[in-house]
Amino acid sequence: MNYAKKLVVEPGAKVRLARFDPAYHGKHGNEEEAGRALEEMKNKIGALQRKMYGDNRHSLLMVLQGLDAAGKDGVCWHVVGAMDPQGCRVHGFKVPTGEEAAHDFLWRIHPHAPAKGEVAVFNRSHYEDVLVTRVHKLVGRKVWERRYDMINQWERLLHEENGTTILKFCLVVSRQEQLRRFAERLDDPNRQWKISESDYTERAFFDDYLEAFDEALERTSTAHAPWFTIPCDHKWYRNLAVAGIVLEAMEAMHLEYPKPSVDLGEIRRKYHAAEQAEKKGSV
Amino acid sequence: MNYAKKLVVEPGAKVRLARFDPAYHGKHGNEEEAGRALEEMKNKIGALQRKMYGDNRHSLLMVLQGLDAAGKDGVCWHVVGAMDPQGCRVHGFKVPTGEEAAHDFLWRIHPHAPAKGEVAVFNRSHYEDVLVTRVHKLVGRKVWERRYDMINQWERLLHEENGTTILKFCLVVSRQEQLRRFAERLDDPNRQWKISESDYTERAFFDDYLEAFDEALERTSTAHAPWFTIPCDHKWYRNLAVAGIVLEAMEAMHLEYPKPSVDLGEIRRKYHAAEQAEKKGSV
Repeated sequence: MNYAKKLVVEPGAKVRLARFDPAYHGKHGNEEEAGRALEEMKNKIGALQRKMYGDNRHSLLMVLQGLDAAGKDGVCWHVVGAMDPQGCRVHGFKVPTGEEAAHDFLWRIHPHAPAKGEVAVFNRSHYEDVLVTRVHKLVGRKVWERRYDMINQWERLLHEENGTTILKFCLVVSRQEQLRRFAERLDDPNRQWKISESDYTERAFFDDYLEAFDEALERTSTAHAPWFTIPCDHKWYRNLAVAGIVLEAMEAMHLEYPKPSVDLGEIRRKYHAAEQAEKKGSV
Repeated sequence: MNYAKKLVVEPGAKVRLARFDPAYHGKHGNEEEAGRALEEMKNKIGALQRKMYGDNRHSLLMVLQGLDAAGKDGVCWHVVGAMDPQGCRVHGFKVPTGEEAAHDFLWRIHPHAPAKGEVAVFNRSHYEDVLVTRVHKLVGRKVWERRYDMINQWERLLHEENGTTILKFCLVVSRQEQLRRFAERLDDPNRQWKISESDYTERAFFDDYLEAFDEALERTSTAHAPWFTIPCDHKWYRNLAVAGIVLEAMEAMHLEYPKPSVDLGEIRRKYHAAEQAEKKGSV
């Protein structure tokens, strides 16, 4: 199964999320089988990410955006959790602080771009500035319109200057499933604290968000930083799809452990000298 | 098994790592049994860390120091890897950059202290400034001597001002086992790149490091930021011990999910209104 090919937004393609099927789940027989497939992929992702850390030439940026309750946090736990925390950072972007808002919209984002060898995961991102700001008319069309190019240029910088592979995930949940998940939270004492008024007030803007996503995906899905639309009504398929796309991208990096930086023959002599010395008890 | 009680450096206690047994492995029957125990602990750690993130009152700082090849990286992968990457950050401190060296030794450390709800892991730390700098005489006794109090004061700040639990792990490996691990790297093409000249040149300072650790542990193991000496000749015991201490500390936090910030009755009405509207197909 090639998840990337199936779910990518081809550069220049039209996007109509209103016609997208968030309940799609491919051909997996059942959730149990999917669970085993996910575990296998996670093991491979963990191994490759550690190799990437050693290789130290590539970096990976995962951008998580999507509708409320589609599962940005779930992807962090169930997919990103496969990685070695050394070399992998999740950064959540909230409503900008006063200082952040006093700068251009990429100013607070840039410091969190991944270093060579590292993985960075953005839970929300610079895309908030063409999504929530548009839906709630916090800035005018002129402002958010010019941001698409700014975003493309900035992402190209990361890609060309630092070898960053950029994967952007748009997590799509249906209106019905979103409501069902809100109801679940209402009945679960361990999750009631997560409920906010905005869960419901934002639902009034569901279609506006779809439209804002449509245009953002159309204008910023590029060869160097593609968007993927992820059907999220089935959490297990969502996890499989994101893991599959990450795994395929890592495999395409052709990662290698670096060559030794030392003369191994010389090191072997040092090793034997140390061994001899120790046997004699002279150290 | 209470790992913390067994391995803690009691405040004020004398430390003589030269007499410490790095091959200690408690009473576990075999590695397989220990592996199962570790998996169980990791599941609990993952669940509690996610609860801590929700609870948002406590934070945890794990400091990893130790002898070369004792397993700082291994602890990141095998123990910290149990946590949700959202809310957990590993930061590795290397040789200070020019800008870092132009500041006091805590300047580059402080920004990485954990926020409320979060876990921060230091792979090496501010302790390098009373260890490597002392062993290699990069600063004089007067300078590193006064740093113990500065460290204690700074750690107290994190603890008292931000509710940070600080756990400091000194990973101890025997001279023989360290050499054996270097030899393993020599024979493993995937790990040869990790070999450096300093692996061998630093071995000449093995006893000096033990002495530097002795004094650092004596002077900075406090009630608010205790040190634990971890026997690391058996990797499985090392992982169990660190996981056990982390788990015990998290359990002692008595974590709770926050109370809902909204009126649940009101939210239930909103939910039913949304459900009705959807049934009618009016949205």
